[in-house]
Amino acid sequence: MSLAPLTLLAVPGLPEITHHVNLTLLILTALEESGCDLRDTDALLIGQKIISKAENRFVDLDSVRVSPRARELAARCGKDPRLVEVILGESTQVVRCAPRVLIVRHRLGLVVANAAVDQSNVPGSASRALLLPLDPDASAARLRESIRAATGRAPAIVITDSFGRPWRQGVCGTAIGSAGLLTLLDLRGASDREGRPLQVTQVAIADALAATAALLMGEAAEGTPLVHARGLPRHFLSESANAALLQRPVREDLFQ
Amino acid sequence: MSLAPLTLLAVPGLPEITHHVNLTLLILTALEESGCDLRDTDALLIGQKIISKAENRFVDLDSVRVSPRARELAARCGKDPRLVEVILGESTQVVRCAPRVLIVRHRLGLVVANAAVDQSNVPGSASRALLLPLDPDASAARLRESIRAATGRAPAIVITDSFGRPWRQGVCGTAIGSAGLLTLLDLRGASDREGRPLQVTQVAIADALAATAALLMGEAAEGTPLVHARGLPRHFLSESANAALLQRPVREDLFQ
Repeated sequence: MSLAPLTLLAVPGLPEITHHVNLTLLILTALEESGCDLRDTDALLIGQKIISKAENRFVDLDSVRVSPRARELAARCGKDPRLVEVILGESTQVVRCAPRVLIVRHRLGLVVANAAVDQSNVPGSASRALLLPLDPDASAARLRESIRAATGRAPAIVITDSFGRPWRQGVCGTAIGSAGLLTLLDLRGASDREGRPLQVTQVAIADALAATAALLMGEAAEGTPLVHARGLPRHFLSESANAALLQRPVREDLFQ
Repeated sequence: MSLAPLTLLAVPGLPEITHHVNLTLLILTALEESGCDLRDTDALLIGQKIISKAENRFVDLDSVRVSPRARELAARCGKDPRLVEVILGESTQVVRCAPRVLIVRHRLGLVVANAAVDQSNVPGSASRALLLPLDPDASAARLRESIRAATGRAPAIVITDSFGRPWRQGVCGTAIGSAGLLTLLDLRGASDREGRPLQVTQVAIADALAATAALLMGEAAEGTPLVHARGLPRHFLSESANAALLQRPVREDLFQ
């Protein structure tokens, strides 16, 4: 075990992100203004919201046609029927519906409240909502490639969002998209110090990093959606892994 | 947002921990040998296992009398009936029992596989198992006080364990005990940049830090159960919070 620390820095300076910005350029500028150089062994952790905004994943609730099913669920959970319609459009399954609670399986596989459809920090009309990126792993891979093209460096990219957990209070950051990182470390076959097989056999590297990074990004007005990480062990890097690997298959879900 | 990074360092050098060691002294020695000074604004994140070992939370499975209920559950999940009896003794509720799976509500409130009873990295006979500390928040508070007494510094203490999640692959670090840290940041009443109330209103600070710290501790033979964190925002510190605050009350559990 080396004595190299893992360093996480919340990088300020990103402007409000819109559809037509060059997100790569804005990120690189913010990094440069904060004195962060980039190495292939670094990671950039990025809040989902700016990716979704750059990809114009806005929905105008006033334009939504509400189905009978959305109306019925909205009555049960007490949410805006138009919002429920949007949530259903992003989902493959309603997991729980209760007063003030609508938990679904997102089309990406995430089990999450309100399909992670977001109405905070969305500029403009109060009837605008923001969906998750269409394919966050692809978004991460594209961003990584454009950073590589601009700088010659290809840091790992993790797109984070903050989700509630069924048995814990408070939200915690989660990796919804990733490129360049070994998202899931597989220790099957490894031994403990006594030579017995390890009970814990897979480690959610990307979620663990996303948790602390999202914490540093902050959730309030002064938040910044960009964290620079340095000091990852080299075996945490991977050219082929992505965040989809972190989804537990539906057939293994004991809590549907 | 200041440009102070959060730095996490896995600190090597702790010996195998047993009941009779002076854990405070061993931790302070390991820190010193790694060149880590301590500040009141630092945090020490510590793997549960060494706390449990120092508290002699071992159970000899050969001494366990198996109840009919444990025998029945063991047949359903395919686990050692003696281990199931120990798990039941640590639990208030069986949440899921399926082949190779026994998820319970631990007496501490944690919903966790096998009541977090551990058989890896437990020295001695293969029939020895290790329970969670009796009261991990109290363990954290005691350790903090003994560090304060020895050094005049009182860093935040977080006792971590790594648990599976219902819908995600891989384990992720969780805070099971804490002292000195604002475990749960309450943003209720705060606004987003548009002045609208934030949708996300509570942030699980201790779990987020535990996630990355447990990652750095490692799960394999070369792991070290001590992480030194520097650069926490001052408002993350609290003299009164603990990890029990992160338990979602049973009455709010939609996934029992």
